[in-house]
Amino acid sequence: MTTRLALLLEYDGAAYVGWQSQSGVGLAVQDVLEAAAAKLAAGAPVASSVAGRTDAGVHAEGQVAMLDLPGDWRADKARDALNFHMKPHPVVVLRAAVAPEGWNPRFSAIGRAYRYRILNRRPRPALLLRRVWHVQPPLDAEAMHRAAQALLGKHDFTSFRAAACQAKSPLRTLDRLDIVRHGEVVEIVAEARSFLHHQVRNMVGTLKLVGEGRWPEAAVGAALAARDRAAAGPTAPPDGLALTAVRYPTDPFAAG
Amino acid sequence: MTTRLALLLEYDGAAYVGWQSQSGVGLAVQDVLEAAAAKLAAGAPVASSVAGRTDAGVHAEGQVAMLDLPGDWRADKARDALNFHMKPHPVVVLRAAVAPEGWNPRFSAIGRAYRYRILNRRPRPALLLRRVWHVQPPLDAEAMHRAAQALLGKHDFTSFRAAACQAKSPLRTLDRLDIVRHGEVVEIVAEARSFLHHQVRNMVGTLKLVGEGRWPEAAVGAALAARDRAAAGPTAPPDGLALTAVRYPTDPFAAG
Repeated sequence: MTTRLALLLEYDGAAYVGWQSQSGVGLAVQDVLEAAAAKLAAGAPVASSVAGRTDAGVHAEGQVAMLDLPGDWRADKARDALNFHMKPHPVVVLRAAVAPEGWNPRFSAIGRAYRYRILNRRPRPALLLRRVWHVQPPLDAEAMHRAAQALLGKHDFTSFRAAACQAKSPLRTLDRLDIVRHGEVVEIVAEARSFLHHQVRNMVGTLKLVGEGRWPEAAVGAALAARDRAAAGPTAPPDGLALTAVRYPTDPFAAG
Repeated sequence: MTTRLALLLEYDGAAYVGWQSQSGVGLAVQDVLEAAAAKLAAGAPVASSVAGRTDAGVHAEGQVAMLDLPGDWRADKARDALNFHMKPHPVVVLRAAVAPEGWNPRFSAIGRAYRYRILNRRPRPALLLRRVWHVQPPLDAEAMHRAAQALLGKHDFTSFRAAACQAKSPLRTLDRLDIVRHGEVVEIVAEARSFLHHQVRNMVGTLKLVGEGRWPEAAVGAALAARDRAAAGPTAPPDGLALTAVRYPTDPFAAG
């Protein structure tokens, strides 16, 4: 028998080429997880699937993955064993649960939440190094927030989509895009059923132009309407981005 | 002429042997600052003084230092030049000001504030690695807070003083010791005119015993009264500690 596990993961993306394994490029978060799982499977390879394939440098506080372990495992024992074997990597299983019948971390998900942090001050980051985008010009977070509201709802997000995006459709429904300042940190929270590749970082890179006063607020909606990547702003760096939560019709970790 | 500067510093202490230079042991934060200052002094050595000599692994969000630069410097230009030369070290000058006449970062200080963070959960830290003390057993933060109040006021803190402490007197006046839980993080805030060596970490290591239920709340006051280091708990690790603020009768950075 095998035990199919749902895993809630936290990781520091700065050290990895991203979630997904890429041969010959460097270590991926997936490699770290699967190598630990293989130790619990007498060396046999263990394949995992995941809710969101985060890019290089992007962090996670609530990534969700699934894998099959040979044998009968209690979820909390599997969590501790995986965490032991992933040492000293900054990748940990926060919670584990036996996966519900038919559940899949990616296809069962009905919502994803990301947080992006900008350190908005003149000196570069020391304690927040690799955790924030450092932007020196003062940003008007309230103007960014107002401008962002034009992106809410169901739209063709071609203007905010990476060229490499593999999604069949550029249509997405953005449920939340809030920008709030906490002292020197400008925090952006984005929620949708799913996002296109680089969509959050492209929205942030565009809203930053509004925050600096280089773009009027109305230009964000116009960039969306153009359905042209060249009409929107540049891609914000990965450092400030974290996948904070994935939502399902029923929380697979509720019992844990 | 020389320009005497007051500097407000942020640094990640994890990479350093502490604030103070120590020959042959490794790099100190002081070395990083003074090497950058020497570049602005045509290579001549520049000595700095500091409000609190933080230990290896201890962070700062509001350390205060002083140094003399040859020539006539505008404070903001000196700040930017120091930050440029300290790259890529996680050490930055947040603010700089021309030091008031007779001012000294250590002897003029009338208050110091530290924050200590405990990550209180079973899985080890990933995103907060080297920023927290990882404690697995559930801590009762309210019990820790109540017990801590026995340490407020003027006392002989011999029980919480490192053997290596060079202070002439073990008498200190503790103004604040608050413990609050924010989700998985238990945060301790300590304020006093000055602290003995390891005093905050020894208080935290003792309060953790109360939080775990291994010590009754009243044992903390009894440990203080014993005036014996062996009567208190172990020293908490440096990772969770940050010097957050140093207070002066007049804020030297108020004009900046």
